[in-house]
Amino acid sequence: MLVPVDIVNLFKNNDKFIIATHMSPDGDGLGSALALSALIEMLNKKTMLVCRDPIPYQCKFLPGHEKFITLDKLYSSVADLKPYNLVLVDCNDISRVIDKEQSPEIYLALSSLNSVVIDHHETEKPFGNIRWIEPDAAATGLMVFYLIKELGINITGEMAINLYAAIAVDTGHFRFNNTTSEVLRIAATLVDAGARPAEIYRYLFESWSEGRFELFMKVLNTLYKENGIAIVKVTKDMLKETHTSLDDIEHFVNFPKIMGDIKVSILFNEIDDNYYKISLRSKDEINVAQVAEIFGGGGHKSAAGCRIKANFETAKREILEKLRQMV
Amino acid sequence: MLVPVDIVNLFKNNDKFIIATHMSPDGDGLGSALALSALIEMLNKKTMLVCRDPIPYQCKFLPGHEKFITLDKLYSSVADLKPYNLVLVDCNDISRVIDKEQSPEIYLALSSLNSVVIDHHETEKPFGNIRWIEPDAAATGLMVFYLIKELGINITGEMAINLYAAIAVDTGHFRFNNTTSEVLRIAATLVDAGARPAEIYRYLFESWSEGRFELFMKVLNTLYKENGIAIVKVTKDMLKETHTSLDDIEHFVNFPKIMGDIKVSILFNEIDDNYYKISLRSKDEINVAQVAEIFGGGGHKSAAGCRIKANFETAKREILEKLRQMV
Repeated sequence: MLVPVDIVNLFKNNDKFIIATHMSPDGDGLGSALALSALIEMLNKKTMLVCRDPIPYQCKFLPGHEKFITLDKLYSSVADLKPYNLVLVDCNDISRVIDKEQSPEIYLALSSLNSVVIDHHETEKPFGNIRWIEPDAAATGLMVFYLIKELGINITGEMAINLYAAIAVDTGHFRFNNTTSEVLRIAATLVDAGARPAEIYRYLFESWSEGRFELFMKVLNTLYKENGIAIVKVTKDMLKETHTSLDDIEHFVNFPKIMGDIKVSILFNEIDDNYYKISLRSKDEINVAQVAEIFGGGGHKSAAGCRIKANFETAKREILEKLRQMV
Repeated sequence: MLVPVDIVNLFKNNDKFIIATHMSPDGDGLGSALALSALIEMLNKKTMLVCRDPIPYQCKFLPGHEKFITLDKLYSSVADLKPYNLVLVDCNDISRVIDKEQSPEIYLALSSLNSVVIDHHETEKPFGNIRWIEPDAAATGLMVFYLIKELGINITGEMAINLYAAIAVDTGHFRFNNTTSEVLRIAATLVDAGARPAEIYRYLFESWSEGRFELFMKVLNTLYKENGIAIVKVTKDMLKETHTSLDDIEHFVNFPKIMGDIKVSILFNEIDDNYYKISLRSKDEINVAQVAEIFGGGGHKSAAGCRIKANFETAKREILEKLRQMV
């Protein structure tokens, strides 16, 4: 991976950076932002780390995570923001970083800064004065890794933990299709620099609360199966009974795929009475985005989503009607 | 890792090898044996692959797995075995390869052959004329990898799949403490040689039968929790109801550890009325082997087992009494 010259020059020639990652932040966004911030500060420059949502509990081991501030704490006077460059990490649209309606003043101030995008998600909106987007990179963490190398900085133990976590999260801990030999080789380099795989795994993937475990059982107990399709459901009542939040259902949709004969797994998430958010996951090249699009949603071939305003049985029937033709 | 000279010479200077792995074979035993067999055959020598138990379904993608024969098919006349060298892979005790009581004739014939051990398990019994044991190696697959390199052979795509699977299984798919930078770097080399991580993951870990999924739910629904200890139970009835076998409970004991506050997870497996096989798994350095030893069992610090002849409530109480002092 080649680091664009204007990205290298940006960090060499400027002194102040606001590093922002996306709402509902994850290990790749947070870990990449933290490693980038550490890199820039080693160049004796100033950074502020910003995220509009709180750090999820499974990421609270990332070195430096406590430096993230929420947008309202950004500055008392937006005029103070002027000398900063805005760097979007693991996202490429300013609306993923700040809500225009809720914080119009800061939104305007941030929008007027020199803006930079470092991301591996494909995009349609051309936000950013400098854009470095690598759709083939498994994680934004890999891009920050190459940037650190390009700037001739030695990777510290803390950087290594943040980047290893970033890569572990976005490759599904080395089990997604994006797990290339390059990914494994960089992971090895990060272990040499101080990342401990077993420890990072435990923080990221084995720190469920008791309530989350109970929720998991309740959700899986709703399993419905037919011809390679699995459907599970989470209701508002389940969340209430287990004292959990929507953050806790992350990855549940994937679990039924553990069965060899399941090709598509679907989670119906009751966000209101007769209103469901539907997540679809597939294996074996089945394109679930096609189904999601029929209902006004979208996504990737193997991971997509949509919303349906109907009761559960109706919504399930409608989805199954479309899917049965594909599986 | 240095490959001993007598191991290299053995394969250079002999022509016939019986390659045997252990009972209840796993990805490391089978994958390592298959890669070793392929290596030896590339040297224009003859191998026979032997395992006393059938290949489990999740390993039936390993290239060449159909070449494994059971002991009874080894030879009509044991005299024919004479020119062979016996290579034990991923085990170091001939009783793990053949049952003396059941097959006394073949046992005697095999015992009289020149014998070689290639294994990463520590041992007390000094079986084998040539012994190559690396207790620090994460998998026997790594040892075979170095042997292939030492003999100057290029790793084929099929070898790569077998060795990647071996390493993936014995590192818990890169999440155990034995996941070193060396492990990740060799995994990267194997990907370059043709192993596909996502595909191998799916075969090894996402090929559950519907019955196994039902069994999983039944077992987890028995969860009992107190002060960092989780206990789950599998009964003979559960296996009957879900049309599953004991092979299907593999790894279940680990699942409750997904909760951040669980330090020890225990599975009680009812092997007969009032007779339980008990598996213990720990994190955070708690030594469950100490508890297993009290009941006449043993194992490693973080993975141990024992048997108790008592009803479930009594067995559970006895184990908990000992454990409470440690957690």
